[in-house]
Amino acid sequence: MRRWNGWGDDTIHFALAPDALAFLAQRIGGSRSRDAGDDASFEQACAAVAPSRLPPHRLIDTGAAVRVRHALGQSLPDWLKLRYGRIGMAPDGVAFPESADDVRELLHYAQRYRVALIPHGGGTSVAGHLTVEDSAQPVLSVSTTRMCRLHHLDRESQLATFGAGVFGPDLEAQLRAHGYTLGHFPQSFEYSTLGGWIVTRSSGQQSLRYGRIEQLFAGGVMETPSGRLEIQTFPASAAGTDLREIVLGSEGRMGILTEATVRVTPAPEYEAFHAVFYPDWKSAETAVRELAQAKLGLSMLRLSNGVETQTMLALAGHKKLIGALEAYLSLRGCGEGKCMLMLGTSGGKPQARAAMAQALKLARKRGGVHIGCKMGDKWKQNRFRNVYLRNAAWEHGYVIDTVETAVDWPRVESTMQAVEAAAKQALATHGEMVHTYTHLSHLYAQGASVYTTFVYRLAGNFDEDMARWRTLKGAVSQAIVDCGGTISHQHGVGSDHAPYLAAEKGAAGIAAMAAIFRHFDPQGVMNPGKLLPDAQPAVASAQARGMAA
Amino acid sequence: MRRWNGWGDDTIHFALAPDALAFLAQRIGGSRSRDAGDDASFEQACAAVAPSRLPPHRLIDTGAAVRVRHALGQSLPDWLKLRYGRIGMAPDGVAFPESADDVRELLHYAQRYRVALIPHGGGTSVAGHLTVEDSAQPVLSVSTTRMCRLHHLDRESQLATFGAGVFGPDLEAQLRAHGYTLGHFPQSFEYSTLGGWIVTRSSGQQSLRYGRIEQLFAGGVMETPSGRLEIQTFPASAAGTDLREIVLGSEGRMGILTEATVRVTPAPEYEAFHAVFYPDWKSAETAVRELAQAKLGLSMLRLSNGVETQTMLALAGHKKLIGALEAYLSLRGCGEGKCMLMLGTSGGKPQARAAMAQALKLARKRGGVHIGCKMGDKWKQNRFRNVYLRNAAWEHGYVIDTVETAVDWPRVESTMQAVEAAAKQALATHGEMVHTYTHLSHLYAQGASVYTTFVYRLAGNFDEDMARWRTLKGAVSQAIVDCGGTISHQHGVGSDHAPYLAAEKGAAGIAAMAAIFRHFDPQGVMNPGKLLPDAQPAVASAQARGMAA
Repeated sequence: MRRWNGWGDDTIHFALAPDALAFLAQRIGGSRSRDAGDDASFEQACAAVAPSRLPPHRLIDTGAAVRVRHALGQSLPDWLKLRYGRIGMAPDGVAFPESADDVRELLHYAQRYRVALIPHGGGTSVAGHLTVEDSAQPVLSVSTTRMCRLHHLDRESQLATFGAGVFGPDLEAQLRAHGYTLGHFPQSFEYSTLGGWIVTRSSGQQSLRYGRIEQLFAGGVMETPSGRLEIQTFPASAAGTDLREIVLGSEGRMGILTEATVRVTPAPEYEAFHAVFYPDWKSAETAVRELAQAKLGLSMLRLSNGVETQTMLALAGHKKLIGALEAYLSLRGCGEGKCMLMLGTSGGKPQARAAMAQALKLARKRGGVHIGCKMGDKWKQNRFRNVYLRNAAWEHGYVIDTVETAVDWPRVESTMQAVEAAAKQALATHGEMVHTYTHLSHLYAQGASVYTTFVYRLAGNFDEDMARWRTLKGAVSQAIVDCGGTISHQHGVGSDHAPYLAAEKGAAGIAAMAAIFRHFDPQGVMNPGKLLPDAQPAVASAQARGMAA
Repeated sequence: MRRWNGWGDDTIHFALAPDALAFLAQRIGGSRSRDAGDDASFEQACAAVAPSRLPPHRLIDTGAAVRVRHALGQSLPDWLKLRYGRIGMAPDGVAFPESADDVRELLHYAQRYRVALIPHGGGTSVAGHLTVEDSAQPVLSVSTTRMCRLHHLDRESQLATFGAGVFGPDLEAQLRAHGYTLGHFPQSFEYSTLGGWIVTRSSGQQSLRYGRIEQLFAGGVMETPSGRLEIQTFPASAAGTDLREIVLGSEGRMGILTEATVRVTPAPEYEAFHAVFYPDWKSAETAVRELAQAKLGLSMLRLSNGVETQTMLALAGHKKLIGALEAYLSLRGCGEGKCMLMLGTSGGKPQARAAMAQALKLARKRGGVHIGCKMGDKWKQNRFRNVYLRNAAWEHGYVIDTVETAVDWPRVESTMQAVEAAAKQALATHGEMVHTYTHLSHLYAQGASVYTTFVYRLAGNFDEDMARWRTLKGAVSQAIVDCGGTISHQHGVGSDHAPYLAAEKGAAGIAAMAAIFRHFDPQGVMNPGKLLPDAQPAVASAQARGMAA
């Protein structure tokens, strides 16, 4: 069964090996292990839920259990609230519409009774998209997950139409039965939904081949308070505003996506992930820029910095094998500070192999040492498993958090350095150290995403842990916008990133977004307080109250 | 010097060979040749221009000559108005801003004096983007062409920032000096501007490699009546609404683009265009669909239907060579009804050649007969010259007009047939025949653009020629939307396509677009009557009055 206060299925456990713990202890200090008794129980969380304020409706479940399960997402503050039993506000109920008509009915209901709606896909948001504002207005969470069927597959145009609440694995399974794939694999893949990907502008690990969700989303149907918006599919169009782009990134502010048509491709006949090591960051960054700009048709490029490379090797287990690898790499000039590049190729066999051959040739020009597919196979095996490390780390008294941005090439290295430094300074004010490392998760001719992980110690106390997170999150978010980065390359804005949105959109851009959402949702019932910074004070105060609750 | 009443430079003439004329006469009847005396003179056109109603301004030229030169675009009704000296309304003046500050000054002026502004790039619109509405409101055309410098080139991120009024050849020349290209080559390339490409969502002939202008436009500055909208560059972002997508396709309704940053690439070291013939449409269409879906990294795919292939061969001259080619093709099974596919490849030599080799292998699988690069070289040589045929055809008493759309694969053939049939039926009601032919100009995994050309006889009389065009344009536009096609894949909406926009956007989509433009332009001074069908009645009546003037 799915964990209510952590990541994933509760039968899946990843242990942190003693060596890994020693590695962390050496860097940021040992921590006190926690056991189940340290966390609030599901029953305690349910007991703390206030009575529902919603008028009854056939589609709405107001039971405490379902409300707790839809109260929060997967951001670190969400975790802290769940683990410490400090949920604060939960939605007053959860609706499970099975059709667009059901959704329309719920929108009418919301407008009639002035109920705030929070669309809920897989609940994997790490940016506070699901936070319930503390206001007099009742709040209804609307789960899209019963709209999950494959409605239509057009093989000729390679278009598949799904209910928007379909989960990643279910979507791929339905396509696989016909020989197709969408190829959209964000790390949250197992628990996130197609609709969630679209309204948060998600990006998959193999977007280099398959495209970001923006490129995959061909059309669909959104129910909005001011009516149904149907978007037809065209291969391309010059006819005015592209309505898909209004839906993309709308984060529940304008309506609920019920159906989406996506561009699929035949399942690849061949796939491989190779690893190449570089002696240092400079040569590695130059190499990946050249690889991205050469447009070779690879499916993935992912470059870890020195500390991430070291961390991955330390946590990999297989001490002897890794030792041998490091000895070999050292002989080849890749010692301390070495950086690992993962290259993926997918598709028809000859084409995919040719692309990889060209890539490896180019990769070697900057001093890259190719070590084959073993590390890549391992990475692929664990691509959706690494998220479980958050559970294991928590049990050992550590938290893992991440932020990500994207910047043009001249600012990639300085942004990485600024984000890591900001995190260290921020936690130093709490007398704590943080282990930070970074990878470039998505590479473009123009620049790259910069994805930084933070590991630091739990205080074991809700207020102090929230304070540590707030200090760190504020510092790294400010560093990102100061470096000219976007506040999100793949996670979206939600409530956590909303205060930083104006830095990139400008006042004129923010006002335009507000005008669009006001047009579709004149009463403001859709996901209030998310995405747009003008609603931020309400969110901030709700969080403050949630803390004190 | 640039022709005021036709395409291109007035020193360039393309003759129609006697064989070509015989070919046309056989199909749609002979026509009476026209000479310069049959057309209105520039002096006559200038004399007919009404006195300017604009309050004076240092940036505005109210001379008749400049106003005539900015009164119309290159659509067939625009041509008819110019050639017959029936311009109707001309703008009351033309402004030549040299900076964003100048543009802001003009926007203040327009709002203060309630002047309608029509942004003017290269004036190559074929959809009535420049039509001056007949209203009490004075109209100012704003030429962007003095904002044309390369401001900045970021080699690392492959980004170039230009004044938005830069013409295609000037843009490429400024980039070439640094070893780069934008690679955006619409047929209007020689006389269209970067800003025009962006606000009409233009697509170049090699978009398969370089992308449509949507993919090339990375950021920029637009001055709007409600303030400046600055769009920063990011390689990608998940942060809410992508503001670029609001500017793209806005067709002057929200402001004037003054600066644009575009994604450039190193000039290709190798480029080649090959031709392959297929015995019939079915096999050719299947082949190009497979080629597009194989994503081989070609730069162009362009498939002519049987009649277009026949027409191109007939108009090519070189009767002997073409005869030999046709004999050879006939032996190889490509006789009557054969279809020509043009394949382009560009980039680094090994990669570009490998892509072509793979493509030709795949092309042969469906019976394609490869004839090498001769036809392709010829095509490349004439890629911007074929537009001049419109001038030559006019002189021989024929008009050439085109429409284009894009549809998903299952509707490609039926759309092509419906558009051609609609044109024939439409002109039959005028007792005329029309020679129609089609090519798929841009190919996507999902579908293709369908680009149809019409050649028919001039009546030699303004009212009848306008009536023929109106009947034909209405019939083919209706056929497009009835087939589920977009009303434009690459030319935009303007006033000619506005009545058909609601068919694809729906009432909800149209209302959303109107809300966006109203937000940026609350007084409605920006290009009134264009793009949105709600303003259509005013346009239609202006056209009607323009005819009667």
